Parts: sequence; structure tokens; C-alpha cells
Amino acid sequence: MSRVSITSGEQSPAGAPAAFGKRILALADRLAAWSETQDGLTCTFLSPAHRTVASEIAALIAAAGLDVAIDAAANVVGRYKSRNPLAKTVIVASHYDTVRDAGKYDGRLGILVGLVVAEHLAQKKISLPFDLELIAFSEEEGVRFSTSYIGSSAVAGRFDPTLLERRDSEDISLAEALRAAGHDPKAITSLARRRDELAGYLEVHIEQGPVLLTEKLPVGVVTEIAGNSRYLVTVEGEAGHAGTVPMGLRHDAAAAAAEIILMVERYCKQPGLLGTVGRLTVPNGAINLIPGRCELSLDIRSGKDASRKGAIGDILANIARIAAARGVKATTTEVLDEAAVPCSMRLQEAFAASIARAGLAVRRLPSGAGHDAVVFSGITDIGMLFVRCGNGGVSHSPRETVTVDDADIAARILLDVLVGLNPV
Amino acid sequence: MSRVSITSGEQSPAGAPAAFGKRILALADRLAAWSETQDGLTCTFLSPAHRTVASEIAALIAAAGLDVAIDAAANVVGRYKSRNPLAKTVIVASHYDTVRDAGKYDGRLGILVGLVVAEHLAQKKISLPFDLELIAFSEEEGVRFSTSYIGSSAVAGRFDPTLLERRDSEDISLAEALRAAGHDPKAITSLARRRDELAGYLEVHIEQGPVLLTEKLPVGVVTEIAGNSRYLVTVEGEAGHAGTVPMGLRHDAAAAAAEIILMVERYCKQPGLLGTVGRLTVPNGAINLIPGRCELSLDIRSGKDASRKGAIGDILANIARIAAARGVKATTTEVLDEAAVPCSMRLQEAFAASIARAGLAVRRLPSGAGHDAVVFSGITDIGMLFVRCGNGGVSHSPRETVTVDDADIAARILLDVLVGLNPV
Repeated sequence: MSRVSITSGEQSPAGAPAAFGKRILALADRLAAWSETQDGLTCTFLSPAHRTVASEIAALIAAAGLDVAIDAAANVVGRYKSRNPLAKTVIVASHYDTVRDAGKYDGRLGILVGLVVAEHLAQKKISLPFDLELIAFSEEEGVRFSTSYIGSSAVAGRFDPTLLERRDSEDISLAEALRAAGHDPKAITSLARRRDELAGYLEVHIEQGPVLLTEKLPVGVVTEIAGNSRYLVTVEGEAGHAGTVPMGLRHDAAAAAAEIILMVERYCKQPGLLGTVGRLTVPNGAINLIPGRCELSLDIRSGKDASRKGAIGDILANIARIAAARGVKATTTEVLDEAAVPCSMRLQEAFAASIARAGLAVRRLPSGAGHDAVVFSGITDIGMLFVRCGNGGVSHSPRETVTVDDADIAARILLDVLVGLNPV
Repeated sequence: MSRVSITSGEQSPAGAPAAFGKRILALADRLAAWSETQDGLTCTFLSPAHRTVASEIAALIAAAGLDVAIDAAANVVGRYKSRNPLAKTVIVASHYDTVRDAGKYDGRLGILVGLVVAEHLAQKKISLPFDLELIAFSEEEGVRFSTSYIGSSAVAGRFDPTLLERRDSEDISLAEALRAAGHDPKAITSLARRRDELAGYLEVHIEQGPVLLTEKLPVGVVTEIAGNSRYLVTVEGEAGHAGTVPMGLRHDAAAAAAEIILMVERYCKQPGLLGTVGRLTVPNGAINLIPGRCELSLDIRSGKDASRKGAIGDILANIARIAAARGVKATTTEVLDEAAVPCSMRLQEAFAASIARAGLAVRRLPSGAGHDAVVFSGITDIGMLFVRCGNGGVSHSPRETVTVDDADIAARILLDVLVGLNPV
């Protein structure tokens, strides 16, 4: 089988210039028309909009000539069979649920890139040495039930059945929501794929950041999904009247917090680290009152767990030092400690080779955000391709954009990788 | 007339050791028993507790043998007449309303120090070359109607009648509240004293700060009531995912705010300046979101208006510089610009001489907080004596304390000053 040409600027394999990209963006618009809200896009797990989108995706997959079904976890699963009846399975997937007031591409881009590639394979009757499973996962964002990866964890065999009792803000349990949508909650554990039947997991996703945009590159190869530590920090100082306590006698909780924020920012300028203070408040603060208390959060990420652990150690020590020097009390509480997940070198190299063949620079970058791919780590090889995100890299927002050309390149690279991939 | 001995450690003129101080603290406890709340002390303008406290104070003044009345602004006014029928008037005053969850001494200490001095003068039949007006002002804290100095501004002739239409949180106007308590709102403007009849205004007040406590001094002479500038500051940066935006590409509104907070703190270490960021919040902040917006407040004080104006100019320029360097937008809105009010040199010297005669070090210090005395600036000479505040200098809190000995010394000094004062 000859390789598919993916040289930048050339025609899509589908025919017309950027035909893949145009179809992907048109379909993203079509799916985004279904929302729980009057304005904007919100599509959370098993809402009417969510169920309609599942049906739309199933219809698109069926129209491409693939077998398709919606499973007990509300995942839409299409299968493009190999001529080899003993072939293993490669999964191409992402999620179709969204955050509130979302963009059109987070999750769905990966599904639609997979779809146009499957359409092309089926139309050209190209046989692969593996079954291609195209999955639109039902849930990744964790909005409705405050738990993420409901769809992908079911397929990966990592679904926790105790979550079925978890309730949403309207006191509906996950099991009840599934049953109301016609699904059998008991069947979810049977969705798990056998590890020995899987030959890899591939996911295309918008970057959700500005790295590719800044470097003027349409796509990048994900090296790993970063590990993440999170802490809540409380600083207790001494409240006092803004007009009566001399500067030298103050124990200002907000000034200590300010020093912590700048320390975190400075420390995390080391390559491979990200540090964010996202929450910050002086409770009941008054304009004429020296803050006696300040609450802040800490989010530290790195692709290397050793870097992250080292950073946490140093940062917590620095917080203690700042607190001691200012005569305030700082309390830190760990709320998350998630290890980094590496992408398979084999799949990284497959993406990189395809990008190079397209005449593009190969940019490898970590993913700071979590993705469905994380759930398949340790189950099968995972590989991820990032697509440039417009508007400064903004995501989880109506301002999220992807261009026709970038979506087109992503589809051609995924096609090229799949056609060249040997199952192991 | 011989001077009153006020040597430290000696008997109070009233007889027993520290008799003034003991009586002052006992009366403060008695007044504090009346509160709007089950626990703690809250006594706001014209509440039942407030009206009861006014009656108690009036009874105490009457029992001392002074003429007493509660005026149209709910001030309790006692008069200890001079034998000279043409004598001018010296006012000794402070306020009996409190903040919510208050201490027992802010305001009331000054009234009770004046009371025990008046009791002593009356008992010893000491005649002064001026009428002594002992006033318990009804309102200074601004809690109920969000306007301060209702009582003192009436006496000073600075009451703004349009405030009568101002409404409290239960939609009761100031005029309605006064009428419900049996007062005639229209009579308030007639409470203004004639300037040519006033020979000075004296106020004893707890320091509400830790300067005297730190320097182990019972009292201090107030040099001026500081001027005050207040601003609201909004920093607008760029929100983003904590896992996807590299540190070098961020425009973090909270990090910019942190830099502003530390800059204000550093700048205001110059002598004579106080700078406070009392309000601080990232609205809708999330642990995994780079702050796109941060709101903070700025309170700058100085006894010297030129210092304050200079500081404001530099600080606003620094804010603009920090914002520009970080690629964020900072908006500053002035919400207060209050000039400093100097205390009369004549009354400062009178207090200082009396303190020195008591064998105590003379500490002069500015008041960072506003007081009723401010309202009399430009009407008559004002003089203030600060009394040491315990517990690290905390005020506006149940943790506010004053010792028997310090209250006793304050009373002996006020008595000494009044006995030696020549009306001008």
C-alpha cells in the first residue's frame, strides 16, 4: 500500500484542497448547534443536547460505512474492520461532552479528525492490519458528576462502579441518569477491552495553549501528559486597622500571600515546570483593614515526576520560610498528587516521522492538561497529536478556534500514521 | 488653685489608688452590657441598646451634679459651669456608638475619662475659667447609615441635612429613625455651637494600634489625624489553563496584583506613611485557571498631605509600570481623598507638659484613624490624648483592652490639663 501524500499545501486525499479540514470544521459547527443553553455551547453528560450529539455522531459513522453502536456508558463506538479476522485493535478517540460555555473543538476535533480519516479509508477501501475503533467518549470534563473520564474509563476497564451512586446537583445519581437515557449501568464493566487485543490508542486534540501558535506550527507531538500537584494554602496573620498599625509591626496575611505568589512564579520559570495560583482571596476583606487571613491555591505541573516532587518540596519550604520571616502562619493541604503519563516512544516517532514527511518542523511538547489518553496508559501504547489553538491559545471558551488548514493537516497526518502503523 | 498631683504610681485625686481607672473600667463594663446582639457588643445609632446607653450616661452625668440633656442628634450633653458667666466653652468628648462585635473602649473610654474628671471637679467644687461641656456623641462609626460623625457634626455645625433622607439596610431613613426615638430632625441644625464661644476641643481615645504598647508608654500626644487616600484597583490579564500556558507567555492578573501589594508595602516603609491592600480577590478563581482578573484596594495614609500626595503619585506610576511590564491592564479609581487634620500646638504642649510632670516620656504620634476631633478642626483648637491599647494594639474587636492604670493616668492628665488651661 502506498503512503498518502500529506505535503503541506497539497490537496487533501479526499480531493479538493483542504477537504478534510473543511469537513471537520463544518461538522464541529453542526455538533455545536446542540446545547443545553440558549446561547453558547454547553453539552454535559446525558443532557438532551448530549444525547442528540451522540446520535448525530453515530449517524455520521454509520454513513461512512462503519459498524456503529452507542454503548452502556453512552460512548459512540464505530469499527472499521481489518480483512485479517485475527487483527488487534487500534483506538482513535476523544470526547464529545463539553465544559460550560465551551468551545467547539475541545474533544470533538479528535473525533471528527478520526471520522474523516475513517471515511477516507472506507471510501478508498484501504485495509489496515488492525481493526480501527473510532470512539466518541461520552464524558471527559467531569462537569455533571464531578468525576472525569466516565466514558474512556469504561472502555479501558477502569470504571469504578461505586461512582454509579454519585449524584449531580439535582440529586440524580449516575445510575439513574444512565437508566433514564436507556442504558444499563450494570453493563458498563463489561465494556472493558482485553489488553491483549489492543495495539494502541491515538488521540488528536487541540493544544489548549499557545505554544504551537507562538512557534507558528500547525501540529505537535505530545511527549507526556504532565503530573499535577495541587495544594490549598491558608495564611493567618494579624488583622488590624489600616491607619494605626505601623508597617514594621504588621503581620499582613495578603502581603505574605503576595510573596508566595511571586516566589511560585519565579521558581516555575525553570524549564518543564508550570506553577499557578488560581484562587486568591482575603475573606471579608475591608479597604481599611490589614488582612488577617488570606486563602490561595497552588497548582504545580511537570512532565517529569521528579521535577514536580522537587519543586513541591522547595516551594513548600519557601512558603514556610516566607511565613516565618513575616510572623504569620501558613497551612498547606495537598488536594491532588497525579503522576505524569508518558506517551509511547513508538507512537511519538510515528507522528514525528509523518510530520517530517509533510515538510513541517517536528515540535514535541508535553500536555499540561489531562486527556482520555491518560486512562489508557498502562493498558496499551498511547500517542497524542496536538493541533494549534488560535486566539492566544484560549480553550474552554467560545473564543477557542482551529483553522481549516490545521484540521486538514492533522487529519492527513493521522491517516498517514494509521496507514503506516504495524500492530505490536 | 494648686495643680493636681499626677505623679505616676501615686493615688488618684479621687482618693484610693487608681480610683479613676477602676471606675472608668467598671463603667465601660456596665455600658457594654447593652448590646443589639446576644453575644458580644454591637451598639449602633438609635438601636434600643444605644438609647439605653444614652440614658445611662445621662444618669451618670446628672449624678455628678452637672446639667445634662440628650439633644436632637441623640448626643448626651453635660455642662459643668464656670463661675464666670461670660466664660467660653471647652468640649471634652468622644462617641458611645460602636462597630459590630466591638471592644468596650473605642469611643467610650474618652467619655468615661471625661466623666470621672467632671465628677472630681464637681465634688471638689473646682471652678474652671471656662464652661466644661462633656459630650457623648451619638454616632461616629458610620455603621447604620454609612455616614460617620452624625453626632459631632451636629455640634460642630457641619451636619448635612440631606443625610436625613439616607436609609439604613431596613429602608428606614435617618429622619424616621430620629423621630421614632423622640427626636426632632429639624432641630439638628440648631445644635451648632457658635465658634466664638468655643475655647477648645479635647478628646481622649484608645490608640487602636501598637505604638504605645511597643514603646511601653501609657499615653501619647496626637500630633495630627492622618490624611487618607483610597483607591480600588482592577487588574485585567489573560485567563488560561494552568496546565497549558507556559510561564513566559502568561499575563497573570494575580501575579501582577502580588507585585503591586509588595511594591505598596515596600514604598510605605518610608517614615510617616501607611499603605494597606485590604481587599484582594480573584473573582471566580479556580485552582487550575490562570487568573484573568484580580481586584484589590489601596489605602494610603500620612499626617503630611504632601507625603500622601507624593506617595499616591509614585504608587500609581509604579502600578502602571508593573502592568505594562506584565502586559496586563490596571485600572485605578479614587474613592477617598481626605486631608490631614493637625492638632493645635497649644493643646499638644498642654498634654505634653502634663505627661512630663507625671514623670512619663512624651511620645507624640499621629492618629491613622479618624475621630470626632476631625469635625472640629477649623472650628476650634483640637487636642487628643491616646491611651495604650493592649493585645498587640487590636481595636474594633472584643479583644480590645485598656488597663486600669492607663485609664487612671489618662484621667489624671486630662484633669491636670483642664485645671491649667487658659481659654483663648
